[in-house]
Amino acid sequence: MDLTHLLVTLILIFVGAKAFGELANRLGQPTVLGELVAGVILGVGGLKLVDPHANVFVLLADIGVIILLFETGLATDIRELLEVGWRSLAVAALGVILPFAGGFVFAYAFGYTNLVSIFLGATLTATSVGITVRVLQDIGKLQTKEAKIILGAAVADDIVGLIILAVVRDLGLQGEVSAWKIAQITALAIAFFIGAIVIGNLFAKRLVKVIEKMRTSGTLIVASIAFAFLWSLGAELAGSAAIVGSFAAGLALGRTHKFEVIARELKPLAYIFTPIFFVKIGADVDIRYFNPFNEANHAILVVGGFLFVIAMIGKFLSGFAVFDPRVKSAAVGVGMAPRGEVGLIFAEVGRRAGIVSADLFAAVVIVMAGTTFLAPPLLKMTLVRRPRGMNLVSWLFEPARKRVSRLIWGR
Amino acid sequence: MDLTHLLVTLILIFVGAKAFGELANRLGQPTVLGELVAGVILGVGGLKLVDPHANVFVLLADIGVIILLFETGLATDIRELLEVGWRSLAVAALGVILPFAGGFVFAYAFGYTNLVSIFLGATLTATSVGITVRVLQDIGKLQTKEAKIILGAAVADDIVGLIILAVVRDLGLQGEVSAWKIAQITALAIAFFIGAIVIGNLFAKRLVKVIEKMRTSGTLIVASIAFAFLWSLGAELAGSAAIVGSFAAGLALGRTHKFEVIARELKPLAYIFTPIFFVKIGADVDIRYFNPFNEANHAILVVGGFLFVIAMIGKFLSGFAVFDPRVKSAAVGVGMAPRGEVGLIFAEVGRRAGIVSADLFAAVVIVMAGTTFLAPPLLKMTLVRRPRGMNLVSWLFEPARKRVSRLIWGR
Repeated sequence: MDLTHLLVTLILIFVGAKAFGELANRLGQPTVLGELVAGVILGVGGLKLVDPHANVFVLLADIGVIILLFETGLATDIRELLEVGWRSLAVAALGVILPFAGGFVFAYAFGYTNLVSIFLGATLTATSVGITVRVLQDIGKLQTKEAKIILGAAVADDIVGLIILAVVRDLGLQGEVSAWKIAQITALAIAFFIGAIVIGNLFAKRLVKVIEKMRTSGTLIVASIAFAFLWSLGAELAGSAAIVGSFAAGLALGRTHKFEVIARELKPLAYIFTPIFFVKIGADVDIRYFNPFNEANHAILVVGGFLFVIAMIGKFLSGFAVFDPRVKSAAVGVGMAPRGEVGLIFAEVGRRAGIVSADLFAAVVIVMAGTTFLAPPLLKMTLVRRPRGMNLVSWLFEPARKRVSRLIWGR
Repeated sequence: MDLTHLLVTLILIFVGAKAFGELANRLGQPTVLGELVAGVILGVGGLKLVDPHANVFVLLADIGVIILLFETGLATDIRELLEVGWRSLAVAALGVILPFAGGFVFAYAFGYTNLVSIFLGATLTATSVGITVRVLQDIGKLQTKEAKIILGAAVADDIVGLIILAVVRDLGLQGEVSAWKIAQITALAIAFFIGAIVIGNLFAKRLVKVIEKMRTSGTLIVASIAFAFLWSLGAELAGSAAIVGSFAAGLALGRTHKFEVIARELKPLAYIFTPIFFVKIGADVDIRYFNPFNEANHAILVVGGFLFVIAMIGKFLSGFAVFDPRVKSAAVGVGMAPRGEVGLIFAEVGRRAGIVSADLFAAVVIVMAGTTFLAPPLLKMTLVRRPRGMNLVSWLFEPARKRVSRLIWGR
């Protein structure tokens, strides 16, 4: 990619994300929903103006979600996270078991082989923590108890997801799984997360002390980003996800007395980088699969529709593992629902191994898109009593003139 | 490049730039000098840990200098720039004519062909406005009259440089130049700059009005960056340099009442992106050419040394085109001296066309490195009477214990 191409891509992403984000906001929806829609319009299913597989775009999107999770860690009190720890683990466990069982049984009943059924089940276990975090940020609910449970469960899910990915990859390539290897991956991932937080805490305090002695400007934000990247790198090398590392780095820096300055200087970086991630997810969705008038899509739509229902119900029920009347279980369940890019990564591995056919991959795209696009409005509905923006249903039934005026002027 | 590789590269850049930037600052030097040194150490001439030709690295460096010039435009009053306009043009003209004539005569006298001599002369005409702007920023002199003259002259030089580049490229590829084509390029570049400022002013005011009506957060900084990128893209398409476009976008937004908020939110982005650019310039320098004990380098060092002296004197004298006793001509001349990446681009075109030999290219690297590394300390010396930091000479003659303690504790 050359500079001209990169500038065109970034301008389209920024303008699209802001325009549709604003529209979503005025329709009473979380802003991130608009950014996803902008991605669909610009991407493979729409105008094909941005290529979601271009190397630079993929890397900038990765940096975007790393910064988002770093920002989230910074704003999260680790003690509150530990307080709800067991409930998070219960939600994560149920949120993996239910969709997996549902997907497996459904596929098996439909006559798919054992291997394909396992793959489909595995694909449904994913949670895209990025989507949920942004929705919680957009609607100002990142500090609620539900948010803490979701955060903890989503991070656990990310670790579990990578273990499942290793299992299915081995199944796909070698037809068998080494229990010893799985145990190793699991132990390493858990050890990394605990180590990242413990060492991160010691390291963060020293880092802030060193930074305070520096005379050049900008050291705090540059060093903080370097720290987040270093922890992301460590997570990658330990076989975990980069965002788990940057989340741990954020938790650690969040306990230093500089956390407010870091959060403030991080904001503009997050504003620039995170839309790249969400537009990329949207750009990956090929909405041509959704066209019911194309007969080739009928089987895809039926299978995708069933899988989508299983995916939603499975994660929704997992929220009820909390067993706490003060916590809105429905919100937790909905918060775990978006599959985002994680589900696609699973299906992609299956496609490359020749296990997931092109049609099944398309069905997974439907599941991914459906859960990802439905989660933001549902999460807002379950967490916010009276929406501050407009109500979509009442808005649709207003006279056209009034509707346009309310959209633009807000009255 | 994958994510792991990108994270390693960025961590090395950030840590290296900050560590050596801090060291440069404590030795009484502009911070940017340390970032350049960090690049040399990490790059092709040093540890080879970062590859200055990796696509993502090059693009992020380009974004870095675009943001730097956008920031500079934002902090520059266009009326002050126009006030010194003629003096800037005189400096730019003399700063192109003198180094070109010097380089051509020297090369011709050394027995090089006409074509090679023209190429070498052209290479010496470049000015890297990025280096000078960062030095002026580092030492807090961006608002002086000298800075305005240098800025105007460097922007003019960037436009002239691209015209010269087009001329030498045609000479190299076709052996002749079309006067009509050159006139077209010149007219288009000048028309673009004037148009970018005039249209930019109208557009910026409307943009700010639209942004003020938006309800989603982060719109101001995202829209400002999109604006800067759009103008950079326009400059590229008009055959001008991207940084000329982003500078014009900054000038336009600098006249709106939101310029202070934009400048504040832009700071963290500049802190993250600009070091990537300076580390990249440093990483391009192969210091093995400087090794005098390698006999193969002797001819390179002699030719490079002569060209370096011509390059420095030519730009230094151009500062005296100002004819104003209140302006420090020496500072203006020194400010025009750094060739940075621009000189290398020229030489690269010549090398690809088979006109510039590997040895001559190495000599140009010496000119580029020499002028780039000498300009920051000289610019500080000529503009700042009593350096606030330490004096390098006195520091070197202190006892070792006191030296280390002053370096760390500043006393």
